[in-house]
Amino acid sequence: MKKLLNKPGEEVREMLEGMALAFPDIIRLDPQWNNVYRAYKKPNNRVALVSGGGSGHEPAHAGYVGYGMLDAAAAGATFTSPTVPQVLAAIKEVATSAGVLVIIKNYSGDVMNFTSAVKMAQAQGIKADYVIVNDDVSISEKERRRGTTITVLVHKIAGAAAEEGQPLEEVKRIAQKVIENGRDIGVALTPCSVPAAGKYTFELGSDEIEFGIGIHGEPGVQRMKYMISKELAKMMVDKIVEDLKLQKGDEIFLVVQGTGGTPYMEKFVFYRDVRQYVESLGLKVFWSWIGEFMTSLEMQGGRVAILRLDEELKRLLIAPAYTIAVRVTGPMLAPIVS
Amino acid sequence: MKKLLNKPGEEVREMLEGMALAFPDIIRLDPQWNNVYRAYKKPNNRVALVSGGGSGHEPAHAGYVGYGMLDAAAAGATFTSPTVPQVLAAIKEVATSAGVLVIIKNYSGDVMNFTSAVKMAQAQGIKADYVIVNDDVSISEKERRRGTTITVLVHKIAGAAAEEGQPLEEVKRIAQKVIENGRDIGVALTPCSVPAAGKYTFELGSDEIEFGIGIHGEPGVQRMKYMISKELAKMMVDKIVEDLKLQKGDEIFLVVQGTGGTPYMEKFVFYRDVRQYVESLGLKVFWSWIGEFMTSLEMQGGRVAILRLDEELKRLLIAPAYTIAVRVTGPMLAPIVS
Repeated sequence: MKKLLNKPGEEVREMLEGMALAFPDIIRLDPQWNNVYRAYKKPNNRVALVSGGGSGHEPAHAGYVGYGMLDAAAAGATFTSPTVPQVLAAIKEVATSAGVLVIIKNYSGDVMNFTSAVKMAQAQGIKADYVIVNDDVSISEKERRRGTTITVLVHKIAGAAAEEGQPLEEVKRIAQKVIENGRDIGVALTPCSVPAAGKYTFELGSDEIEFGIGIHGEPGVQRMKYMISKELAKMMVDKIVEDLKLQKGDEIFLVVQGTGGTPYMEKFVFYRDVRQYVESLGLKVFWSWIGEFMTSLEMQGGRVAILRLDEELKRLLIAPAYTIAVRVTGPMLAPIVS
Repeated sequence: MKKLLNKPGEEVREMLEGMALAFPDIIRLDPQWNNVYRAYKKPNNRVALVSGGGSGHEPAHAGYVGYGMLDAAAAGATFTSPTVPQVLAAIKEVATSAGVLVIIKNYSGDVMNFTSAVKMAQAQGIKADYVIVNDDVSISEKERRRGTTITVLVHKIAGAAAEEGQPLEEVKRIAQKVIENGRDIGVALTPCSVPAAGKYTFELGSDEIEFGIGIHGEPGVQRMKYMISKELAKMMVDKIVEDLKLQKGDEIFLVVQGTGGTPYMEKFVFYRDVRQYVESLGLKVFWSWIGEFMTSLEMQGGRVAILRLDEELKRLLIAPAYTIAVRVTGPMLAPIVS
């Protein structure tokens, strides 16, 4: 697999170095661990937010460290959970007296390592709690659903609550509200390849797609014949609308993204099809993001995420944020797409 | 070729519809032509900027329409120049009494159609002039060099001069200064495919790359064996440094980008390698952008652009801009990468 990388296995450290070189006003890299922290520490009376996970999902999660979102991101090796000591180091570095909320994607390795780190931090006298994001609607049983794009919306919305000075219990309640009202689904046109493995995570025929794809290049829940954007948009939105029991007139936040290797032409056509279809159902789009938010290396494909909004979520969603990947400088100023 | 698109040939209109649906506060789509204009018209005493070209290079050019950059972008079919009447319509729509500067990439079709439109606009009493961008350093003869990434920097810098209220002659002089001091070079790890053609623009072996690639999927100037990011960074920077005769201590603006299908992990590793190498040469990086700025559909690979700066170019580069793809909300606030 040809990649713009150097030695396989070095890609995570080198990527984080690149991010820190480009954005020293936003982040700093912890050279002992592959952890990224805010360049400027949050006040002690504000709840700190920690997240992370395997790499390969960029800009998640280091791209979301900064004002209004995360305080720390622990970057594991590509598609591999960060270790317990690494996550514990992140929690200890950014902990405030208001407490720490740890945001975990629902994968067994992440859940085990992040919850262990939370327990160890608590044993060391740190006020810490966690939430687990399981938004991938392609899987029927809720407890087996994987954590994907809604994780980023938890960063954004719980992060804004933390900046407002809300206590840990409230920040957790709001994070949980995002999880309960958000769903995501993905489709892959091509597989991806982990640098150290040097081969594709699965094989796909030239007329096949993987519907309900995870973010680690694992096969989707259903292999299907290729469909055009409009048909995929309908199938994906229907899955979410049904599961969230969305009603005509509901206000939603819409995220339409590529999976890492999807060009902007396709992202904008797919956005158009998703947007026109949700509006045909009578849903009201309050705001949208189009870009790359929770990706799978060089995979080509798309993901749709929908969050049902209420006044509290709307207020926190459009609150200011200043990170590498999401900048909100005023109400309704969308993250830019380049 | 599987793409998140609908009927081949409809992709440009549908993409522009998606952009206009997502960003109605920034752009509006002209339904007769595939032209994109600012949502809010510029004052009549400011020079207007018009650009455009074949589609497939997103976010170029519609993504650069807005405050501080373009007033109009004419989007041709994929990899095909817009027509003379289309460009003329764009010029007429946004023309002010201060005049119009048309920014053309150096491709025979673009040069012919855009200069014809300028002449027709002049014949109709519109004050209009143009510049031609030829920054692709991989080709030796200057007049044959193609227009690539520096075009976007002309949009940004000449656009800022126009907002300042500088006259057409000055805006043109500044645009020309950017062209003289900027160079770009690209490498492809994979080819791309035009939707209507349904096949790759060239074939590449699994251990081959195309060095000096253009932005239309045309083969590069040299087919080479695969090299790692660090080696490519050195080769590409050397080409630019030699051609621009850059000296130790020179201040530069650095753009490191993917070619459409390059994931962020690779863009940040490649950025790190380019940045460390230019700094090892004693060049001073004033600011950088990392993302996708002038792409080639789903091609995987990278481009490096360098602009030699002086005080005038620095002032205009960091001036405010508000477009879909580039937002500068204050000095040194980089465009975000998601």
